[in-house]
Amino acid sequence: MKTDITSAKKGLIIINTGKGKGKTTAALGLMLRAWGHGMNVVMLQFIKRATANCGEHRAARRMGLELVAGGAGFTRSNKNGDENRLLAIELWKTAKEKVTSGNYNMVILDELSYPLRYGWLPVGEVLEVFRNRPPAVHVVITGRDAPSELIEVADMVTEMKEVKHHLSKGVKVQPGIEF
Amino acid sequence: MKTDITSAKKGLIIINTGKGKGKTTAALGLMLRAWGHGMNVVMLQFIKRATANCGEHRAARRMGLELVAGGAGFTRSNKNGDENRLLAIELWKTAKEKVTSGNYNMVILDELSYPLRYGWLPVGEVLEVFRNRPPAVHVVITGRDAPSELIEVADMVTEMKEVKHHLSKGVKVQPGIEF
Repeated sequence: MKTDITSAKKGLIIINTGKGKGKTTAALGLMLRAWGHGMNVVMLQFIKRATANCGEHRAARRMGLELVAGGAGFTRSNKNGDENRLLAIELWKTAKEKVTSGNYNMVILDELSYPLRYGWLPVGEVLEVFRNRPPAVHVVITGRDAPSELIEVADMVTEMKEVKHHLSKGVKVQPGIEF
Repeated sequence: MKTDITSAKKGLIIINTGKGKGKTTAALGLMLRAWGHGMNVVMLQFIKRATANCGEHRAARRMGLELVAGGAGFTRSNKNGDENRLLAIELWKTAKEKVTSGNYNMVILDELSYPLRYGWLPVGEVLEVFRNRPPAVHVVITGRDAPSELIEVADMVTEMKEVKHHLSKGVKVQPGIEF
């Protein structure tokens, strides 16, 4: 069943931010729900490496879902600043196209908060694109420290707050949980 | 690719709680990731009606994933207390079986916090079952006001905090977002 994208009452801007777990994970949940409803959905990942083969990438392939990792990755010691910056500028061109095309019910911009925070992408231009999108398109943004201008225009903002985290107790990252 | 369930280093107890959006949604994201890794995962929903046909139920059917809604639903005026209580007791029997069976890498108990909060299920027994589960099994619990005894034994706890919500501005619930 395909949902007519014009039937949606109002496209929302949804932000998952904060330091806790679950920002990308909840966006994946929205992706799954939207896909279940037969909606057209795409996720673009601004930081995750193109070679990433996480649970979500494997799942997306099995589901025939469009999920593009287009970053250079963060490591503890290295934010891969230059590479991530250039890749973010590239991926933003694709994002702009997807958001404005009218071909998608939902466009998920995973970790977009970082290119905005680091000044790799101009917040003003990003807001302008969101403002001029077809009105039924949902845009989902994840990442720590979402800029206040973005929070301002958002319809739904959730802060994921870390109450307890096993990684801080030395438990290793695990498939199906962290990736 | 099937993951050998014995290869997981340590099964985690993960709680998504708080008043904000994204608790169940992030659990669905974990489900998707785990499924992508070829892990065996099941979600049992304690409040959602058996007749629910939300995005996640439609997606689960398409993915061949086990997702059981076994509650009576909450409405604004009615918590369907008696019915939800009896159904929770029933569904907990299934949950116990799944958690202890060794057949699952991940068991998601959606909205389990409510039956615990309302005293429909004894917290002590629930903790006992978790304690005696095969050590590699991840258990994910969602819902507001997770009891402190549960928080205590959890490995990862995220509080979803509502910063902004469109429903409080009169925007209607929408497919792919709320359900």
